[in-house]
Amino acid sequence: MAKAPIITPQAEDFPRWYQDVLNKAELADNGPVRGTMVIRPYAYAIWERMVAEVDRRIKEAGAENAYFPLFIPESYLQREAEHVEGFSPELAVVTHGGGKDLEEPVVVRPTSETVIGEYMSKWIQSYRDLPLLLNQWANVVRWELRPRLFLRTSEFLWQEGHCAHASQHDAAVYAERILRDVYEDFMVNELAIPVFTGRKIPQERFAGALNTLTCEAMMRDGKALQMGTSHELGQNFARAFDIGYQDENGGRQLCWTTSWGVSTRMMGGLIMSHGDDRGLAVPPRIAATQVVVILVKDDDQGSAGDAARRIGAELTEAGIRVRVDDQASTPFGRRATDWELKGVPVRVEVGPRDLADGQVVLVRRDSGEKTPVDIAALSVTAANMLVTIQDAMLDAATQRRDSATVDVMTVAEAADAAATGYARIPFDRLGESGIEELGRTAVTVRCLQTADGGLPSTDDAPGTVALVARSY
Amino acid sequence: MAKAPIITPQAEDFPRWYQDVLNKAELADNGPVRGTMVIRPYAYAIWERMVAEVDRRIKEAGAENAYFPLFIPESYLQREAEHVEGFSPELAVVTHGGGKDLEEPVVVRPTSETVIGEYMSKWIQSYRDLPLLLNQWANVVRWELRPRLFLRTSEFLWQEGHCAHASQHDAAVYAERILRDVYEDFMVNELAIPVFTGRKIPQERFAGALNTLTCEAMMRDGKALQMGTSHELGQNFARAFDIGYQDENGGRQLCWTTSWGVSTRMMGGLIMSHGDDRGLAVPPRIAATQVVVILVKDDDQGSAGDAARRIGAELTEAGIRVRVDDQASTPFGRRATDWELKGVPVRVEVGPRDLADGQVVLVRRDSGEKTPVDIAALSVTAANMLVTIQDAMLDAATQRRDSATVDVMTVAEAADAAATGYARIPFDRLGESGIEELGRTAVTVRCLQTADGGLPSTDDAPGTVALVARSY
Repeated sequence: MAKAPIITPQAEDFPRWYQDVLNKAELADNGPVRGTMVIRPYAYAIWERMVAEVDRRIKEAGAENAYFPLFIPESYLQREAEHVEGFSPELAVVTHGGGKDLEEPVVVRPTSETVIGEYMSKWIQSYRDLPLLLNQWANVVRWELRPRLFLRTSEFLWQEGHCAHASQHDAAVYAERILRDVYEDFMVNELAIPVFTGRKIPQERFAGALNTLTCEAMMRDGKALQMGTSHELGQNFARAFDIGYQDENGGRQLCWTTSWGVSTRMMGGLIMSHGDDRGLAVPPRIAATQVVVILVKDDDQGSAGDAARRIGAELTEAGIRVRVDDQASTPFGRRATDWELKGVPVRVEVGPRDLADGQVVLVRRDSGEKTPVDIAALSVTAANMLVTIQDAMLDAATQRRDSATVDVMTVAEAADAAATGYARIPFDRLGESGIEELGRTAVTVRCLQTADGGLPSTDDAPGTVALVARSY
Repeated sequence: MAKAPIITPQAEDFPRWYQDVLNKAELADNGPVRGTMVIRPYAYAIWERMVAEVDRRIKEAGAENAYFPLFIPESYLQREAEHVEGFSPELAVVTHGGGKDLEEPVVVRPTSETVIGEYMSKWIQSYRDLPLLLNQWANVVRWELRPRLFLRTSEFLWQEGHCAHASQHDAAVYAERILRDVYEDFMVNELAIPVFTGRKIPQERFAGALNTLTCEAMMRDGKALQMGTSHELGQNFARAFDIGYQDENGGRQLCWTTSWGVSTRMMGGLIMSHGDDRGLAVPPRIAATQVVVILVKDDDQGSAGDAARRIGAELTEAGIRVRVDDQASTPFGRRATDWELKGVPVRVEVGPRDLADGQVVLVRRDSGEKTPVDIAALSVTAANMLVTIQDAMLDAATQRRDSATVDVMTVAEAADAAATGYARIPFDRLGESGIEELGRTAVTVRCLQTADGGLPSTDDAPGTVALVARSY
């Protein structure tokens, strides 16, 4: 009797494959309140690495971390018209606190432009205080009617940058810097996920923004995922919260603000960009466990187990993030499959027979390739293999994305191509009617680019192309 | 005309001194919703270091980080009688989400025993799954009627550990391990704050705990601050959430759970343990900025400024956390006072005259001592000075604490001693009537210890002493 597959094959039912990976690799559970999420330790350790790597880049971009309150007076949101309209349907409202009904209900932050705007207004006096570059790591709440773990949850974890600049030019430059030096660099070089960067069309912008820049990735089912956004808010929030400064001539000026964020949604992107029918596959640079040393079976003296633990210690010493699985009472095959399911990039198999030859076997998660290696050369070989895997995973993901991206000239062709990936179409060929037509089959404009893949400065610049796709 | 002091002297009005330090050192602001707090970048950078150091110790103690939802169904809290009674008056309740009234209101977590209990129950099957050692870094909400920044805020940041153990003994050992190896070690060796560790009396325990262990520090106004607690929850939550396991003989057993936490309250402890009339004083190991290099004034060629920046780079290279203040357009005295106010442990003064002699001047924040140093020896001297300051600050804090701790034999003497610090009194001399009498002047039992300062295994063990004090 054939064993039932551990997880549903992607080709059979991709959403179910995703759910199976979440369950079987012990990544996340549904919370008790609709739409909320429990992030389990194995996934949280990967998220911690994401946080560390994004945070490092944010600090290099000059922003400082701070923390603003979870609760925002309802009246704050109402000060920016588009903002309140955009977020009202998703708000969670606290009406009761400390045993009493509250005089003014407070909302649980869906994002913090408004409350941070209030403090920027206090803290900024002169042009010398600019730019003010702030970031916070926090949880936010946007009530979700159709939740999906990591992708759309009522509560999620994220960072939100909030900055005030002296001029529109400064704001635009910084919004793009964050997009490129923080988000794109992180996604490509750490997550091994290629992204299209571009400009959102007005109907897809952040509520209250003049311009939203985005990183769009492609999942293995051919659907796009918005992985991170960077917004030019113009003077909308500066006006609403009176964020102003005295310029060098003593005149009063209004600031130009930006905001930008990435979230636990990136975990969903990681899973669906690299995962396959054997489960999750984590790129080495972001993996909390890069190498698992598995004791195949022990010998009577327990010397194979000792060797496995010693090898684990040596690899750790070499700067590799290692776990040792010496639970030889559980069948080897089951454990190997389990670590594959969890997507650990390299497996080191340690068994009495190979040890007798002074060898262990390295197995790559991405390609399945097995390599016997002399123990003396293990640390160097493993470290090199991690670099190779990182590159190979980015290459493979880029190839998948590019081969599923088709240049088209008509709306009908775009709809066709978007069934399996991205269609790239001249924006003036699409037009408002084309956007509407595609929308009927849930195909949307993911972003606009210049002909050479750059960022268009306006929506209607000549030569602008639109990338359209189905999306999460 | 004498300049007005920047901050209120401690002896004049300690609470106002505290508020002045928060404002002038740009540490925190009140949030717009009563009791909430804005943590400004300079304070948040210190908090990030606290998080990193506590987190490292938690991981060494074997716990893994995870994340559980902010929202908890109201019914969960009701499953443990003491717990709901303890927390009900402090709850924030969400009654409205996604544009609708909720069928069941949800509470914003005041702590997460209940929601984590629900998942422990699912995840634990057998004795092989134990101990299950979890931790999360999160925000929690407890509605505060008399808020005080960092000390009592309606929302605060913390870590909460939640563990399930196979036996009462395992639970007790782990609760103590967290108290000693994580909390006490961190507070003493990183924060340079000596703490009394002990057992809480029943009326001061966590709601739902059988035993609460605590770290109690002393502030410079002679009041105690509870800095962290570790709880044995017995089988109360295991029973309420059915957290059980199959033992080695196939029998069904109930787990024993523990929980433990430290919060942004430690920032308040840091400020009030070390701060003086010149402002904040941050111990080097926890300081986000350990050394500030101040350009006293520049010369015509700008070479002093260049030297200051070069010195900053060299100190950074030596592994020291450095900021360079080369804003020579602002008077030196004002900047020096400002960095003193912010409590940076070492100031390096770089001016043309000293530079001509190949020297700079090092100034210790703790003692005010000034030392001219050859530039060639700067990195080594500064690094050694940071070690010296760390030790000196712990010594000074310990001396202050010990000299304000008095052994007494009567309740009247205890009340007297507690006006300025701790009184240590045999617990049987205190009795319920003594506790009540002291309570009338807001003096409480901070913790119980054995005669030699250890942890008593029960409240009524012979020889138990009580440490009593006023407290935050």
